[in-house]
Amino acid sequence: MPAETTVSIDPTTGAEVEEVATVTSVQELEEVCRSAAEAFIELKDRDRAFRGGLLRAMADALEDRRADIVALGVRETGLLPARLDGELTRTVHQARLFADVVDEGSYLEATIDHAGDTPMGPRPDLRRMLVPTGPVAVFGASNFPLAFSVPGGDTMSALAAGCPAVVKAHDSHPALSVLVHDILNAAAYAVGAPAGTIGLVHGRQAAAHLVRHPAVSAVGFTGSLDGGRALMRLIEQRPTPIPFFGELASLNPVVVTQAAASSRTKTFAEGLVTSLTGSGGQLCTKPGLVLVPYGPAGDELVEVAAELVAAQPAATLLSARIRDGYEQTSAELRRIPGLSVAAEGGQPAGSGFAVAPRLLTMKASELMESQIGECFGPTTIIARYSEAELVDIIRTLPGSLTATVHSEPGEDIRPLVQELLPKAGRLLFDGFPTGVSVSWAQHHGGPWPATNTQHTSVGPTAIRRFLRPVTWQSAPADVLPRELRDTYTSIPRRVDGHLTLETATARKGVR
Amino acid sequence: MPAETTVSIDPTTGAEVEEVATVTSVQELEEVCRSAAEAFIELKDRDRAFRGGLLRAMADALEDRRADIVALGVRETGLLPARLDGELTRTVHQARLFADVVDEGSYLEATIDHAGDTPMGPRPDLRRMLVPTGPVAVFGASNFPLAFSVPGGDTMSALAAGCPAVVKAHDSHPALSVLVHDILNAAAYAVGAPAGTIGLVHGRQAAAHLVRHPAVSAVGFTGSLDGGRALMRLIEQRPTPIPFFGELASLNPVVVTQAAASSRTKTFAEGLVTSLTGSGGQLCTKPGLVLVPYGPAGDELVEVAAELVAAQPAATLLSARIRDGYEQTSAELRRIPGLSVAAEGGQPAGSGFAVAPRLLTMKASELMESQIGECFGPTTIIARYSEAELVDIIRTLPGSLTATVHSEPGEDIRPLVQELLPKAGRLLFDGFPTGVSVSWAQHHGGPWPATNTQHTSVGPTAIRRFLRPVTWQSAPADVLPRELRDTYTSIPRRVDGHLTLETATARKGVR
Repeated sequence: MPAETTVSIDPTTGAEVEEVATVTSVQELEEVCRSAAEAFIELKDRDRAFRGGLLRAMADALEDRRADIVALGVRETGLLPARLDGELTRTVHQARLFADVVDEGSYLEATIDHAGDTPMGPRPDLRRMLVPTGPVAVFGASNFPLAFSVPGGDTMSALAAGCPAVVKAHDSHPALSVLVHDILNAAAYAVGAPAGTIGLVHGRQAAAHLVRHPAVSAVGFTGSLDGGRALMRLIEQRPTPIPFFGELASLNPVVVTQAAASSRTKTFAEGLVTSLTGSGGQLCTKPGLVLVPYGPAGDELVEVAAELVAAQPAATLLSARIRDGYEQTSAELRRIPGLSVAAEGGQPAGSGFAVAPRLLTMKASELMESQIGECFGPTTIIARYSEAELVDIIRTLPGSLTATVHSEPGEDIRPLVQELLPKAGRLLFDGFPTGVSVSWAQHHGGPWPATNTQHTSVGPTAIRRFLRPVTWQSAPADVLPRELRDTYTSIPRRVDGHLTLETATARKGVR
Repeated sequence: MPAETTVSIDPTTGAEVEEVATVTSVQELEEVCRSAAEAFIELKDRDRAFRGGLLRAMADALEDRRADIVALGVRETGLLPARLDGELTRTVHQARLFADVVDEGSYLEATIDHAGDTPMGPRPDLRRMLVPTGPVAVFGASNFPLAFSVPGGDTMSALAAGCPAVVKAHDSHPALSVLVHDILNAAAYAVGAPAGTIGLVHGRQAAAHLVRHPAVSAVGFTGSLDGGRALMRLIEQRPTPIPFFGELASLNPVVVTQAAASSRTKTFAEGLVTSLTGSGGQLCTKPGLVLVPYGPAGDELVEVAAELVAAQPAATLLSARIRDGYEQTSAELRRIPGLSVAAEGGQPAGSGFAVAPRLLTMKASELMESQIGECFGPTTIIARYSEAELVDIIRTLPGSLTATVHSEPGEDIRPLVQELLPKAGRLLFDGFPTGVSVSWAQHHGGPWPATNTQHTSVGPTAIRRFLRPVTWQSAPADVLPRELRDTYTSIPRRVDGHLTLETATARKGVR
């Protein structure tokens, strides 16, 4: 019997283009995990400068192969070249930012309390720092084949922490996964990183074994609620629990005040339709529910949005599974009493994974009866509200990655923002949630079902997921990590309760 | 049928002293949770100065009632007055330290990235800060009726974060729980905190409903592995998952090098016996396994320790359940082939919860075949090792809160420490693990089964468990938390990538 293979499909035709790899056998998975565990031990002996260099070498290697990566990505995902070009830029930037974060060093939370007297009595010398947890299993997303896949935030934050990553290649872009893995692996080899620093496995069976493997210390996941739940159930079977950091499903409500609906009717409608149809609506931050007030301004806003959606061409989705999910969720939504289809864009033609964009409308008061969740694809619901019911409606919403308010200067939106705060991890004002800048102040996470933990999967604090604190008590200097020695002063540390910003130049100082 | 009650027992006699409270009905629990949810909303409008004041008022109130608290604690737990006096000091210190942490403000991780250009293109204004998650359910421990119970680290870190706490009164000190809750509640009332800031419930049924209640955002637990697992199973039934922060079981291995065994034979044995018998051995950081080298020095060390254990009186444990658990685990340990009882202290007499301290010995090589875990109470195992087998033995050990090395200056213990690092959250040198100072650099947590998350339950970073990040994008200044406004400069923040230590005095500056 021939070994099962993963196959690369052209989403514009649905045709199989090539066999990419045989699925990873249990024995091969063992080998990958053993190699990651060995790499973890070797990486412990490398300093932060090495890890920063590793991340930068990977960023450079991705940049060098930009044309190949974007071309294969376009062929395999149906996403537009400009979109994948931008996504690669973001991915490279993210790796370099994480290298800067590793250099800067405050992410270690280095803390020194010298021995001394306290109200509790004498205190021994205590020194605390974060250390890497161990190999990390990474499950990327279909919709970001770079920024949330093999070279994405989970992999790069694991490597920044000092943890090897074992990536499960996504079924919807296996060829791109292999190409990028080869590029990263070669870059790691070139800077002398141990074999096993970044691994790749294929197939569902390997995935199930990976999350239960004793060498794996944590799982990073971006995907569907069902997929995340299935992995969580497998993880619960482990004798030794490990954290699962899942980014799952998000409705991303947008509230338009009466004043904003009046003053920016057309520009809001345009921005909304751009946001909900970009990348085929396949973004975890796509606005899935828009609360628009009753009245003539709101009516006009809906009308303009409907015209724009009707003018949209059919969108080619990433895979047959995502297309089927979109049509199934759309059908379920249309069964909600009072919900109607205000506009439908171009209909799919031919044999690819195309779907029609849709604008749905309903009364917001009916949201309270229906459990509205994410519909992954180019659809949004405009729900019409009256001022008196807005707070109750917001309280019934599920948690999201984002919540957005469009209002006019001078309006007191503080009570509205207080209601939205418990529902989201990012609050936006007068914008659309589909851009996620990678920067220090970013947070990409939110109350369940947006994520299942308090952590982010974008930005420097994503690194913390793969670190754990250790305290050294009365330790001789030579067993301490160098960042905890008195003589080391080139990173921010908290010393005897006081945060200090000592820098490389301070090394020449008195301490 | 009369309502079921919780009963306060004298552990020295096993006699019921008083009925403390009726168990909390489902209806009463609803009321407590509703009140906590309302308090959470009210507390959001209070600033950090208020929360610091609340913690200090609680600390002062505990201090004012020191004599009553210690006397009732001694009567109800059988712990010594000096021990409970010290524990109250620690508890008060912890509340005040958390107040200082709230004042200092860096725990908020306030981060501002102004709008600007990036390699990814233009970035909007992004501002990130941690916000409280919501009401926290607290399950305290029997062995620290103050520092890990009603007024303990979980409660105080929840309040520091801005989260109301609902405490499940521990069955082994219900009267003390009520007294302390009344004191804290009165202190909260006196400073104008909302009703529901700190709640108390009684009974197993209330506990089971509490962790599944929709208003509860997180659970802090200190107790047994079995108890923790039972709560985790209940939490898994929730439609909305919440984090469970459990401190569960810890073996706390101690390794003595050949040189240290020779040079400090007697002082080590004395220190060990003091550490393992203090508080009846009922400490989560009790050294439960001591690796001592073969040879005459090790033989003598065992001999001295055995004499000291034999001279110990019987220890009164906290409850019938803990006594029974101690005897059951001791019996299981004695079934391990090659394990023998080297010494037994005074035998229990009368009807209280007393047990005999025990010193057990075995060959360390046999540890690899047996699954040794925590034995809660005044027992330790000395396992004898040869140099060649030490690394393999350490690799078979479960995770612990602590791991300790006793060595002589000049010995290269770095390889040994590298082996112990994956096994513990605190590494100690030439000391004993049973003291846990509350300070910035402390960490109280460790790999499973010590804790089930990467978080600490002691020290300022315990507060982070009850916070989640939120990012405000392009927000008008008046909807931002004041700590994220440009004009607010009195806490450390990261601004445009740079950590800044602006203080209250900087407010008069140019910004």
